[in-house]
Order: sequence, then structure tokens, then C-alpha cells
Amino acid sequence: MSPTSLGLVAGTLTSIAAIPQLVKTLRTRHARDISIWQPLLLAIGVALWLIYGILIQDLPLILANIIPLACNVMLAILKLRYRNDCDALD
Amino acid sequence: MSPTSLGLVAGTLTSIAAIPQLVKTLRTRHARDISIWQPLLLAIGVALWLIYGILIQDLPLILANIIPLACNVMLAILKLRYRNDCDALD
Repeated sequence: MSPTSLGLVAGTLTSIAAIPQLVKTLRTRHARDISIWQPLLLAIGVALWLIYGILIQDLPLILANIIPLACNVMLAILKLRYRNDCDALD
Repeated sequence: MSPTSLGLVAGTLTSIAAIPQLVKTLRTRHARDISIWQPLLLAIGVALWLIYGILIQDLPLILANIIPLACNVMLAILKLRYRNDCDALD
């Protein structure tokens, strides 16, 4: 496998990684064991990656960060929405 | 802020994002609401990013993926370890 193919597989896996978590959280309506910091830091981080990709006009960087941005923003919102009194944000 | 500084902040945030989740999971010993697929896909994905970084000799790419690799491998193991009968892996 060439380094470029390896990079493409790596980018695909890290791009889609939050989808199963989002599906599970939407389905179970529970987010007790999820730290708000992971989706929050990932959402801010991938948003900055996206802006960086736009600034340096790098299409793969832009494409790789759109799905994680959407998923992690939604996960952070769901963590707040499904929270109850016994559910810590940290 | 220059594109390079923006990229460095983005890389730092996405690198450290899994640390609070790891701390929370270790502290609470619960991983019910976590999908095994997120840490698993991220662990494999960042491992491939790391190999890609080594192959193309890109130091920032190598450094940015070491912490997420360690955190996500540990999270996947903890998800299996703290699992009980009522706790789905998906």
C-alpha cells in the first residue's frame, strides 16, 4: 500500500469515527458516560482545521473535517440535552 | 492569526480531545453510553496517520497522533473492561 493510499484510509477512518457514537446517543437518548470535553474540543479543533484548509486551499483537509465537525457539534448538543441531575458534564 | 498558528492550535485541540474522556471513564468506571466504534475507529485511524507520518517523514503528523493513539486504545480497552450484561458495545 502506497503512503498516499494509507493516508486516504487514515483520513476516512478518523472522518467517520464519530458517526457510530452519534447514532448510539440518538438511539439510546443517554449520554451519562460521555465527557462534554471530547466532542467540544474535537468540534472546535476540526472547525479550525477546516478554516486552515480553506486558508491554504487544501481540498482533502476541507473534506476530511466536514463530517467530524457536524457529528461533534451534534454530540456536544445531545450531551447537554440528555443531561439530568445525576449526569456530570466533565 | 497566521494559517500556521491556526493549524497548530487545531492540531493541539484534536490531539488532546480524548484525554478528558479517558479521565472520566477511569474515574467513574462506567462506559455504558460510549460506542466502542468511536475509540476503535479513531485508534486504527490515528495509528495509520502515525505510520503515514513516519513514511513521509513528517514530524508534526507523528507528534499529533501519539497522544490520541494512546488515549483511544485505552478507551477501547476500558469500554470492554467496564462492560456488563446491560451494556451494548455499539
